[in-house]
Amino acid sequence: MNEALKRLVQSIALPDEEAKRLAAAHLDQLTKPPGSLGKLESLVIRTAGITGQPKPDLARKAVVVMAADHGVCEEGVSAYPAEVTPQMLLNMLAGGAAVNVFSRQAGAEVVCVDMGVNADISHPALLNRKLRKGTANMAKGPAMTREEAEQAILAGAAVAEEACERGIQLFVTGELGIGNTTASAAVASAFTGLEPSLLTGRGTGVDNEGLSRKTGAVQQALSVNQPDREDAIDVLAKVGGLEIAGMAGLILGAAARNCPVVLDGFISGAAALAASRLCPASLDYMLASHVSDEKGHAVLLEVLGLEPMLRLDMRLGEGTGGVLALPLIDSACAVMREMATFASAGVSDGTGVLEA
Amino acid sequence: MNEALKRLVQSIALPDEEAKRLAAAHLDQLTKPPGSLGKLESLVIRTAGITGQPKPDLARKAVVVMAADHGVCEEGVSAYPAEVTPQMLLNMLAGGAAVNVFSRQAGAEVVCVDMGVNADISHPALLNRKLRKGTANMAKGPAMTREEAEQAILAGAAVAEEACERGIQLFVTGELGIGNTTASAAVASAFTGLEPSLLTGRGTGVDNEGLSRKTGAVQQALSVNQPDREDAIDVLAKVGGLEIAGMAGLILGAAARNCPVVLDGFISGAAALAASRLCPASLDYMLASHVSDEKGHAVLLEVLGLEPMLRLDMRLGEGTGGVLALPLIDSACAVMREMATFASAGVSDGTGVLEA
Repeated sequence: MNEALKRLVQSIALPDEEAKRLAAAHLDQLTKPPGSLGKLESLVIRTAGITGQPKPDLARKAVVVMAADHGVCEEGVSAYPAEVTPQMLLNMLAGGAAVNVFSRQAGAEVVCVDMGVNADISHPALLNRKLRKGTANMAKGPAMTREEAEQAILAGAAVAEEACERGIQLFVTGELGIGNTTASAAVASAFTGLEPSLLTGRGTGVDNEGLSRKTGAVQQALSVNQPDREDAIDVLAKVGGLEIAGMAGLILGAAARNCPVVLDGFISGAAALAASRLCPASLDYMLASHVSDEKGHAVLLEVLGLEPMLRLDMRLGEGTGGVLALPLIDSACAVMREMATFASAGVSDGTGVLEA
Repeated sequence: MNEALKRLVQSIALPDEEAKRLAAAHLDQLTKPPGSLGKLESLVIRTAGITGQPKPDLARKAVVVMAADHGVCEEGVSAYPAEVTPQMLLNMLAGGAAVNVFSRQAGAEVVCVDMGVNADISHPALLNRKLRKGTANMAKGPAMTREEAEQAILAGAAVAEEACERGIQLFVTGELGIGNTTASAAVASAFTGLEPSLLTGRGTGVDNEGLSRKTGAVQQALSVNQPDREDAIDVLAKVGGLEIAGMAGLILGAAARNCPVVLDGFISGAAALAASRLCPASLDYMLASHVSDEKGHAVLLEVLGLEPMLRLDMRLGEGTGGVLALPLIDSACAVMREMATFASAGVSDGTGVLEA
């Protein structure tokens, strides 16, 4: 781990236990049976710990969509051709993708980052952090060098820091990259030791033959590269992706700035796993949104110890599931600011003594 | 069934199949893998069928909170005293309850209806539809008369109709009433034939002893009254509640006006079951929101054939879970109006032919 990355990891603090305690105490004063808001209560308590605010206010939110291409597409692992990555990135920059629609509804910004798209794209709203034009084919050798993986992580962390500087308080991890469920399956398999067949799904929708090619490519990538599961950078470099490493960095950068990070689907889960191996304390900053239809996502959430709020059988990526969870987080935080207490509303709290 | 109720039931039409077909066809033109928005796609297609609009727009939404008291509280079935019903109703009218907070976030109105609270409450925003001051204790005899149950259903339907007249396009079923999970368990058991112990939960949080008293009260109510499961009005009258009958009526009234109805938790599920027995076609107008922590809710959703979108382990009632699902419905509808198509965005749809 290079010096800049070491400093980043060391700057991530443990959650604020006093803020969590105050949040939990306030929740129990509100006009509802104790605990009756379920996961929204644990969400608010965790968010209080992350931000250090007993009544968190997260008005400014951004979904960061990291885009990159994957050399492994040569193996025929996707239902879509690789040129869809730049095409969809332009669609997103024009506001026409699903993540744009959901973000307008949720009041979140969409920040597009070119981490390594295999095309020259220029757009005033696009952050150009391109490290190379796509990864190499991991089925034949390392996807990228160790230095490139470190640079991608640091670039992701810098995107988070810059966004925090201009007021962003919460992040959603998004991505775009034909072939990236293949790389994510390899990353997840490397870290967990689980069989690739348990973690390789249909992505954008490959048929049975495509799924078998895809699983084979993951197996081959792991066997050719032999990533060291104790060395997260080695895993990301050999079988990862530029956007996956960037997303891991975004999570670390957000955590370093005391911002919650809402995870989207399977690719976000692989990046989150990498971030948690680079810095276990970063886990405390992650919030799960949905469990996707992509095989392996539920397993990754279990490994991360995170419980999803939404079950929509989605498998679109881009950050869409994460953005759909934002109104739930807003509602949970609003409860802390706006709901009456038993005392203020003159409601009996069931203990037999009506507080005045 | 009286004549007015017969007319109501007969006015509920089947969904618009052509609008559903057009919605499904449009979804497949959008820049995403087919089906990748999961339940949001089926939600939009169903909503198109309900409203007759291929691109549904449901800007004006209301959660209708029906409040009433329950004579069965004498049996010690709740963790809270019965006076909490009027106290919480006043809290809600003042905007301090959880449902108010969530509704402000979701842009929905809260409509409070007194269907039978055991106190005199007057407030400019409260709809007074009080039929009696709470039900009789169903553990000793019928909760209300058959005529009262019919009047409650018709009053609920009239609330929906009046709201539609002033522009409401979508309803959420909400409720308030200490003791109403007990009545709902009895209603659910009567309709499904399942053992009361499978449907009786902790409600606002009774302890083991309270749960055993509660289950006993449900068993006794069923055994004393012998409701006829083939006669939904008989079930509602003997072991229901004024708000449960009102909610069933609200569902029928909304369906008659081609409005979707979002169901909240267990009590809403019992009312939905009653509505579906009064008029099977009304099922097509119901949308599930969350599955609650209350025992029996998951079973009711299965019986209704509805799949929840949210799993938040909530057990608060009021309509809170239903309101939390509204941003998902808004986002699903916005996709139809705002997302780019493969052709308009110049994105390859994976079939090898890029439409121009």
